[in-house]
Amino acid sequence: MVKLKCTVTYDGTNFSGYQIQPNKRTVQGEIEAVLKKIHKGSEVKIVASGRTDAGVHAHEQVFHYTTNLTIPLANWKKALNSLLPDDIYIRKMEEVTEDFHARYHVKKKEYRYRLLVNTEKDVFRRNYTCHIPMALNKEAMEEAAKAFLGEHDFTSFCAANTPVVNKVRTIHKLSIIEDSNHEWVIQVIGSGFLYQMVRIIVGTLLDVGKGKLAPKDVADIIEKKDRSYASQTAPAQGLTMWKVTY
Amino acid sequence: MVKLKCTVTYDGTNFSGYQIQPNKRTVQGEIEAVLKKIHKGSEVKIVASGRTDAGVHAHEQVFHYTTNLTIPLANWKKALNSLLPDDIYIRKMEEVTEDFHARYHVKKKEYRYRLLVNTEKDVFRRNYTCHIPMALNKEAMEEAAKAFLGEHDFTSFCAANTPVVNKVRTIHKLSIIEDSNHEWVIQVIGSGFLYQMVRIIVGTLLDVGKGKLAPKDVADIIEKKDRSYASQTAPAQGLTMWKVTY
Repeated sequence: MVKLKCTVTYDGTNFSGYQIQPNKRTVQGEIEAVLKKIHKGSEVKIVASGRTDAGVHAHEQVFHYTTNLTIPLANWKKALNSLLPDDIYIRKMEEVTEDFHARYHVKKKEYRYRLLVNTEKDVFRRNYTCHIPMALNKEAMEEAAKAFLGEHDFTSFCAANTPVVNKVRTIHKLSIIEDSNHEWVIQVIGSGFLYQMVRIIVGTLLDVGKGKLAPKDVADIIEKKDRSYASQTAPAQGLTMWKVTY
Repeated sequence: MVKLKCTVTYDGTNFSGYQIQPNKRTVQGEIEAVLKKIHKGSEVKIVASGRTDAGVHAHEQVFHYTTNLTIPLANWKKALNSLLPDDIYIRKMEEVTEDFHARYHVKKKEYRYRLLVNTEKDVFRRNYTCHIPMALNKEAMEEAAKAFLGEHDFTSFCAANTPVVNKVRTIHKLSIIEDSNHEWVIQVIGSGFLYQMVRIIVGTLLDVGKGKLAPKDVADIIEKKDRSYASQTAPAQGLTMWKVTY
């Protein structure tokens, strides 16, 4: 048996999320179907670094699986990519030791959230950005971003009714980069993220940018440990899982 | 009656082309359906600068229509955009004189064709670029491009069986711009273009870049006035109607 670590990119637009679900088109479902074909009908389960919701993209998501087939790594990549649909692409295959685990061994995760800050819409970026048709106060957002840095209980920034008990996470970096073409990229690097945490952080930063919240409100919202104090979850299509570090 | 000139952008991915067809999703069909709604059930016909094929995009396409409604221009734009699907967006509305014609009065058209020149695929650009997974000889392509400049009979670069009689067109500019992210943009500006002309020119330049044709072959192919001598039509999704000048 060989354990393989696989780095995959996908356009989340036409998927009902990463995780396999009956009668839905999912990233895991598509990959497992291809692996089943390669294994001549035997089921192969893949384990990813984490899920992504419907509409959320991945620049680099990581999963692992074990196989009894002895195929060179380069051929694995070719075989998978030739059978996968054109919105999933395997970037890299690596052989790993038996103890490697794509979820448990994550050291850091990076997400990027793209905003289109412009009065005009862009049809070509509708599936990859959140369109904000008004000016945003970037200085206020950057001030607010500081409050998220470090170790906190992020209960206020986690979808309600999430079964996870320990909601303490560490955010190493949270920066807002003004790009060309009216695009702002919110880059978040952390030890790990709770369900919808990045999108709720972005929703809250947006309310600061619009002047609905003051930068100093963020520390209070964190302190409350109650989802109802934070802002609305920002839409899925702006979010990309950027990089997973082990 | 008022005549309106309208600049529209669309993502061609999910359309069976610009031109209206029964039981197909087309750009013209969507726009005319919205205009019919605004005109309380009266049909309004729009006239565009030209068609685009299935999968071809528009950064700026232009059409005109006449209306008996007296709505301020800014409200026209709002009304249309609020009713149009999210892959069509009206950029600009202008009132024009009665003699304006979106097709007959075109002075210049610019198209851009995007290549992704990289061994790796990019799922996010699959609908907007033509993926070339090998190196291309840019100098040879630039040398070949020169042969297209000026006035020529472009019969060799027009889909066979096109009913147009006069196939003489003028190309003002044809340049290849190496962009960031492994992207090459082929920019073509001309007096007007025959059916699939840009895509056949690009297909031929690609064969030069791959070494299947020499730059000096292009003048001979033009001279033949026979479609069978030029290369394959490059795929639709790389092409964008960029700008129409009157």
